[in-house]
Amino acid sequence: MLMQTHEARLAALREELKRRGVHGLIIPISDEHMSEYVGDYAQRLKWLTGFGGSAGFAAVTLDHAAIFVDGRYTVQVREQVDGKLFDYKSVPADTLGGWLAEVCESGARIAYDPWLHTWAWVEALEARIAPKGITMVPAEGNPVDAVWGDQPAPSPAIAIPHDETIAGRSSADKRAAVADWLTKEGHDAVVIPALDSVAWLLNIRGGDVPHTPVALSYVIARKDGSAQLFIAPEKVTPELTRHLGNAVTIRDRAAFEGALGEYAGQSVALDPEFAVVGIAQALRAGGASFAFTQDPTILAKAIKNPAEQAGQRDAQARDGAAVSRFLRWLEIEAPKGGVDELGAAARLQAFREEDPGLSDLSFDTISAAAGHAALPHYKVDEDSNIPIPPGSIYLVDSGGQYPGGTTDITRTVWVGPGEPSAEMRDRNTRVLKGHIQLARAVFPQGTVGGQLDVLARQYLWEAGVDYAHGTGHGVGSVLAVHEGPQRIAKPSGGQAGTGQELFAGMILSNEPGYYKQGAFGIRIENLVLVEERQIDGMEGRYLGFETLTFVPLDRKLIEKSLLTAEEIAWVDGYHAHVRALLSPRLAGDDLAWVERETAPL
Amino acid sequence: MLMQTHEARLAALREELKRRGVHGLIIPISDEHMSEYVGDYAQRLKWLTGFGGSAGFAAVTLDHAAIFVDGRYTVQVREQVDGKLFDYKSVPADTLGGWLAEVCESGARIAYDPWLHTWAWVEALEARIAPKGITMVPAEGNPVDAVWGDQPAPSPAIAIPHDETIAGRSSADKRAAVADWLTKEGHDAVVIPALDSVAWLLNIRGGDVPHTPVALSYVIARKDGSAQLFIAPEKVTPELTRHLGNAVTIRDRAAFEGALGEYAGQSVALDPEFAVVGIAQALRAGGASFAFTQDPTILAKAIKNPAEQAGQRDAQARDGAAVSRFLRWLEIEAPKGGVDELGAAARLQAFREEDPGLSDLSFDTISAAAGHAALPHYKVDEDSNIPIPPGSIYLVDSGGQYPGGTTDITRTVWVGPGEPSAEMRDRNTRVLKGHIQLARAVFPQGTVGGQLDVLARQYLWEAGVDYAHGTGHGVGSVLAVHEGPQRIAKPSGGQAGTGQELFAGMILSNEPGYYKQGAFGIRIENLVLVEERQIDGMEGRYLGFETLTFVPLDRKLIEKSLLTAEEIAWVDGYHAHVRALLSPRLAGDDLAWVERETAPL
Repeated sequence: MLMQTHEARLAALREELKRRGVHGLIIPISDEHMSEYVGDYAQRLKWLTGFGGSAGFAAVTLDHAAIFVDGRYTVQVREQVDGKLFDYKSVPADTLGGWLAEVCESGARIAYDPWLHTWAWVEALEARIAPKGITMVPAEGNPVDAVWGDQPAPSPAIAIPHDETIAGRSSADKRAAVADWLTKEGHDAVVIPALDSVAWLLNIRGGDVPHTPVALSYVIARKDGSAQLFIAPEKVTPELTRHLGNAVTIRDRAAFEGALGEYAGQSVALDPEFAVVGIAQALRAGGASFAFTQDPTILAKAIKNPAEQAGQRDAQARDGAAVSRFLRWLEIEAPKGGVDELGAAARLQAFREEDPGLSDLSFDTISAAAGHAALPHYKVDEDSNIPIPPGSIYLVDSGGQYPGGTTDITRTVWVGPGEPSAEMRDRNTRVLKGHIQLARAVFPQGTVGGQLDVLARQYLWEAGVDYAHGTGHGVGSVLAVHEGPQRIAKPSGGQAGTGQELFAGMILSNEPGYYKQGAFGIRIENLVLVEERQIDGMEGRYLGFETLTFVPLDRKLIEKSLLTAEEIAWVDGYHAHVRALLSPRLAGDDLAWVERETAPL
Repeated sequence: MLMQTHEARLAALREELKRRGVHGLIIPISDEHMSEYVGDYAQRLKWLTGFGGSAGFAAVTLDHAAIFVDGRYTVQVREQVDGKLFDYKSVPADTLGGWLAEVCESGARIAYDPWLHTWAWVEALEARIAPKGITMVPAEGNPVDAVWGDQPAPSPAIAIPHDETIAGRSSADKRAAVADWLTKEGHDAVVIPALDSVAWLLNIRGGDVPHTPVALSYVIARKDGSAQLFIAPEKVTPELTRHLGNAVTIRDRAAFEGALGEYAGQSVALDPEFAVVGIAQALRAGGASFAFTQDPTILAKAIKNPAEQAGQRDAQARDGAAVSRFLRWLEIEAPKGGVDELGAAARLQAFREEDPGLSDLSFDTISAAAGHAALPHYKVDEDSNIPIPPGSIYLVDSGGQYPGGTTDITRTVWVGPGEPSAEMRDRNTRVLKGHIQLARAVFPQGTVGGQLDVLARQYLWEAGVDYAHGTGHGVGSVLAVHEGPQRIAKPSGGQAGTGQELFAGMILSNEPGYYKQGAFGIRIENLVLVEERQIDGMEGRYLGFETLTFVPLDRKLIEKSLLTAEEIAWVDGYHAHVRALLSPRLAGDDLAWVERETAPL
């Protein structure tokens, strides 16, 4: 079959829209679960436009088409998308509503797939364009799918039980807590579409999303503790059926929409962030009432129990050994000039894969040399791959899925020969100071992540610089590497979660950075666990962080004169812990390298 | 005339309610301008119940009555209010809506004075009690006033022009900016009820509210730059009329409600925080539409121009000399045991009043000895007054209204003989460290006060303690000592303003503290000015604080070993500035005292 051009695809889509009697369609990067990472079968924007970024959307009318991306993708969209087919639009300056109001006539009917958008999104867009006489209409079946001849099938991976000794809590117990919550809130059932919530609630894992061990499925949990799991039959093994037990009914995922019609007269809870508008519409059509409220598993999932904490520590020890071996290898090989970004990422993966417990990476490795490191979300591929220049900074942000936990670590290292510039050492040390102050923070119960963010930024601000991303995100337990509801970031930064109270048991990243465009980038990331603190004379309950990630920090990038005595003590203590934890897992030159790198500053 | 009992007052009010055919009334501490400080004429809660606190409200029905106060007033309300007449209720646990739902029958009509409540308050209460069949009805004339025989008249003080060289900007220029804003926002006029907004916009001052030089009045400003000032005729002098000029029409304050009927078909802007529901109702009745939006003078007023900044610096130099002389006097007299809280406050006032430019204090002095200092909002009066015990901590929070600016300073000092305990020195030094870190903060444009708050708390948190108030409030320019919109506080603390971006020219207090119940209290407060910073290699715009307040810090309460070298340098630099600023204003023993107290640590 000949490769279809994007021009042909766009023309076919317009024919389909005409056939349906609508005047346009919105094409997001989204799936039926509002997932952060979207499977190939749902990469409709990429198929239609060629755009390979992870955020953006297109709008197509019979006469016009535009693609909307944010500042991160300004260059990339022009490289990948044909400007003759799609106008380039930049969010947030350009808005979808504004564009539709401009290009559509009054009376236009614009289709959207109700399984790819939230209620709030549809409502906001409708409010914006209704005054112009433009109507949003839900599509029955996605129009792109109708013309996408070789659309990949959803992943056929089976779902597997997640061992209760690792989960630390039975699914029955978790469902009982959800049932208590439903009773207290006055609802009959809750629809849970978020894939990691389903996985957590039923203690199952899957292989349908790259790097996140979840299975494409929905749960409807009821106030009697029972649940229905909607999942493709080919994913269900006898072992899974046994694991789920009698209180969990397994139904075909294809029956989910119809099943939403079975709640007439009942009150059903929906999380507005994860429930697409199609779910709400189907409930309403079936005579149910629905109430928007946070998915009751979200906070429970974020607070790791002792078994999950132990699993995370085990995962970190394994991961720390692999990353340390990689850094030693890099220190020897990269200065010779023969290592490129893809090669380094592959070597790091190989070190991790020597651990038979590793099931996957936890996300695509960010392997960034020189100026690439200044792009915080850089993704290396065959096109962007460059050799790591000797005499430069290299940044690697990576993680693994281990039997007990999910890791996420960033190290920034100087690749010899030569010495890093004074500016590089200054910036790296300021990032490190912020990392340390956040790691050392003590704060009262009731504190939210938005309050702590400044601790990580203060030394950069002192020098008149900053970083344009959050400081810390939640991390799942053998689940998604990005997990809510907590976040450490600027409260005004537009990221959800900065108002979430922190609770003992939550895991977060601690990852300040600094990025000098076109020159170099720095990020130092460890995971931390929120823990209760006991302090002489304390009044009320206080919390702090236990650092979980243990890999040497690059000494060549540390300007010791900028550190206080307390900060030096923190680094030395951290390195002593690295040595103690990793020594039993390393031998020979690797062990000697870690011993050298973890000597007191 | 015999003093009427509270029982008789309550009975008279109930008769009045019956006469009006309503079943109850809400009695807040509030005026028609939603002022923080309320004149005697509007102290209806105090007259009815005897309660003298600054926050709280009562609800009276024909058969029940309750008074609602927060945790600060739990003890006081029981001392001042007769529990046989009023049930004691504690907010936020007890709610007005809940209480009304409990004591009222369906069909009950509860009156409220529409000139004492905001729209949002009425709406929230109605939503709470409507399901119980209870209705809120606006009263025509306050029912308390109808039975309050000797209700004080509003203050007769005249309004006076505020010198443009001090204001730094003409009223015509300010009104032109408001007019531009109205045009841009698509409104015809804005109603400005906030007294300090009126004073700022028209460059007038008054004497109607204790310690805040404002005149009871309203402004309606129009998009042609004209304005109407509604003010009691006896407050208007020929000088004021000349000052206001032709573009400002002066009308009787009594005509204000009627004047709101003159905007039929027009769009009028209202600040929901300061416009009482009566204003909105009168506009609506007159055929105008109204839009809730922030008073356009609020942000402009908060950003002090160079003349206001210069006036503030002059005020601080005068105030610093007076407070320093007081502290020397206190150091000599208090250890003898003959000074009480009221006496100390009077002596401080006398030192301030030696400056002929002082027009008033900026608030009631908090003069708090020993355990009283542990009450952050302690108000000394004849009943509470105690001698300052020798060998104790004394806290004094005070300020003055000077020709050029408004001051607000807190110092905490050890009163000999003897030495403060190690705990006192530890806590005071942690408060000081937080004060210094906030004073030294550098932060990018776009930062909000809620982000910086942690800088002031971090060393207390490290020791497992905290303070239950905000860290910094805005301060007016020859106006209110508490002024919005900015605030440095916990974003989750329920205080408005923590999400307000800070701009160069804003003045804030920097006042962390620590309070050990029944034992001692500490607060260190200076005012600071937000200023632009120039930093080598900076990326974007950065801000910092210029400290404005200069009075020695008590060395006896500082544990030097807890300070870093940078913090010691900050204290020494601060004290050098105190010495340089105050030396020309002091002589003899006062000068020698300041020189001794400001020597390097």
